[in-house]
Amino acid sequence: MDAAGLLLRPHTKSHKSAFVATRQLDAGATGICCAKPSEAEALVTALLDERRLDVLLTSPIATTATAGRVARLALDAEVTVAVDDVEALTSLSEAATSVGSTVAVVGDVDVGLGRTGVVDASSAARIAARANELPSLRFAGLQGYAGHVQHVAPRASRGAANSAATAKLGAARDEVQAAGLTIDVLTGGGTGSWILDEADGVISEIQAGSYVFMDREYRDALDGDPEDCFAQSLYVLTTVISANQRDFVTVDAGLKSMATDAGPAVVRGGGGTYAFFGDEQGLVTRSEDVALARGSRLMLVPPHCDPTVNLYDHMWLVEGDRVLGVCGVVARGRSY
Amino acid sequence: MDAAGLLLRPHTKSHKSAFVATRQLDAGATGICCAKPSEAEALVTALLDERRLDVLLTSPIATTATAGRVARLALDAEVTVAVDDVEALTSLSEAATSVGSTVAVVGDVDVGLGRTGVVDASSAARIAARANELPSLRFAGLQGYAGHVQHVAPRASRGAANSAATAKLGAARDEVQAAGLTIDVLTGGGTGSWILDEADGVISEIQAGSYVFMDREYRDALDGDPEDCFAQSLYVLTTVISANQRDFVTVDAGLKSMATDAGPAVVRGGGGTYAFFGDEQGLVTRSEDVALARGSRLMLVPPHCDPTVNLYDHMWLVEGDRVLGVCGVVARGRSY
Repeated sequence: MDAAGLLLRPHTKSHKSAFVATRQLDAGATGICCAKPSEAEALVTALLDERRLDVLLTSPIATTATAGRVARLALDAEVTVAVDDVEALTSLSEAATSVGSTVAVVGDVDVGLGRTGVVDASSAARIAARANELPSLRFAGLQGYAGHVQHVAPRASRGAANSAATAKLGAARDEVQAAGLTIDVLTGGGTGSWILDEADGVISEIQAGSYVFMDREYRDALDGDPEDCFAQSLYVLTTVISANQRDFVTVDAGLKSMATDAGPAVVRGGGGTYAFFGDEQGLVTRSEDVALARGSRLMLVPPHCDPTVNLYDHMWLVEGDRVLGVCGVVARGRSY
Repeated sequence: MDAAGLLLRPHTKSHKSAFVATRQLDAGATGICCAKPSEAEALVTALLDERRLDVLLTSPIATTATAGRVARLALDAEVTVAVDDVEALTSLSEAATSVGSTVAVVGDVDVGLGRTGVVDASSAARIAARANELPSLRFAGLQGYAGHVQHVAPRASRGAANSAATAKLGAARDEVQAAGLTIDVLTGGGTGSWILDEADGVISEIQAGSYVFMDREYRDALDGDPEDCFAQSLYVLTTVISANQRDFVTVDAGLKSMATDAGPAVVRGGGGTYAFFGDEQGLVTRSEDVALARGSRLMLVPPHCDPTVNLYDHMWLVEGDRVLGVCGVVARGRSY
């Protein structure tokens, strides 16, 4: 990231772990992203005695109750919130004023996905102007996350889609600057686009999260591209619990043990194909090379890392066969 | 169930909650099912001061370490284990003898799904005979769970599939009895098959779990059938966080907020169609009838109840708009 002239603000929705966040910050990350206020609350609380976190909330907030939570969180951390509705600024300003905190604001710009963000540059400029004038708020810049681009293959299509997305963010930037406002950060980008973002030259801060783990879905999409430069570090350990069938065995990892939105897991080292086999079990085909006796263990590469980690209270840290430690997934289930 | 002459042993893999288990037992359930040893450990521990649970572990266990855990659990609860490999009995007997407990055994019979169970009646008879002679074990009967039948539609097809499945269990029962052994229980059946099981006349104890919540998947499959007699009790509450698009709004429940293996959720009361919109968000189409402003709330019927509950640490107990209480999902994440 240093070489690319980009800041990295890793998205903790991938790992939800104070331990991993600390490692990322110690390695030079400029701060962290959180998807939801509860996720940020868990991480800020876990690290309160260690450091004052710098948190970007990447999803808009919608109620006065949530504005109050975010304003209070800003007493214990540097907090920036993505805002895509000018009315949200009023309750955020009132809440921050009431507790004596300052909340930074990035205008959230829809760059093609349509999930969140304002739909045109003039709306972004209105949010910027209003954030700039309301008490207890600080206008920091713009967010444009191209979630629809990250898994596009082949790379040429991904590059074209990313350029179209960052052009929308660039147009919003221009309109905000034309109104005389200063933009400190243009945040967005992910594991599938960060090299493209460097080339497009609009985004200044990358929100990548999955890079720390990787998964089958990203590996399939990025296969061999320059972005495909991260090691697989996340696995689900599973045990063969039944071996009475000729063509397959049954393992104890099913729909409750990993994400199910992105197809099947992959057996590490080959020697069988995994398929879901109900809530509690999976099926692994037998191959001639590998004995799959009752009680034997397999490592699975999850199909999609973020929702997989969200199923576990702990992650075991291993190097080869050696267990180095265990870390809590302290923001597990914090989706509100 | 009383009217049908069947016992009910509800599967706690659906709710993972000591509170719900207690309500089911107080209402007449003969015991509970657990999918995994860790699930049983959590529930037995949570209720240790209240009652001695009667637990059937419905998945085979595969290692001596797990046999040890089950044997120790049998000091604090009545424990029955499904076994589909005669070698598993040796370690189970040794572990139970070593701690001074008794573990009951049901022979697990594959009735067509192939996921677990012995593949022929003579293997069931071998497990029965061996369980009957080994110290610290007690042979209790047979299990035949037709997981592949529960969601079959229309009902005539489901009935034919269920009869084929229970016939396999009946054949195993006959062979065990021909060897002079007594069968106390024939356990199986679920939310989609229990009336069919009554008609087939083989199964004596129903393992239904989903009936306590229901979900979109079961509702679609059972639509209007006699089995479709349970109220929807499980919902995911979600908030509109972005409303800048003409045709839809974005809510804060996505892939991490419910099961994703069984299609989309349904918006309670209609007024929009839900679709997944990434890890953290969902999309709800706008309709003319319902205003979907930023901050408004919707209730979603989850697509599949069990893996949905497994994402939450707590369930709120509500009646209309009134909150009656909150109960812990004490066995959440206990999939090992």
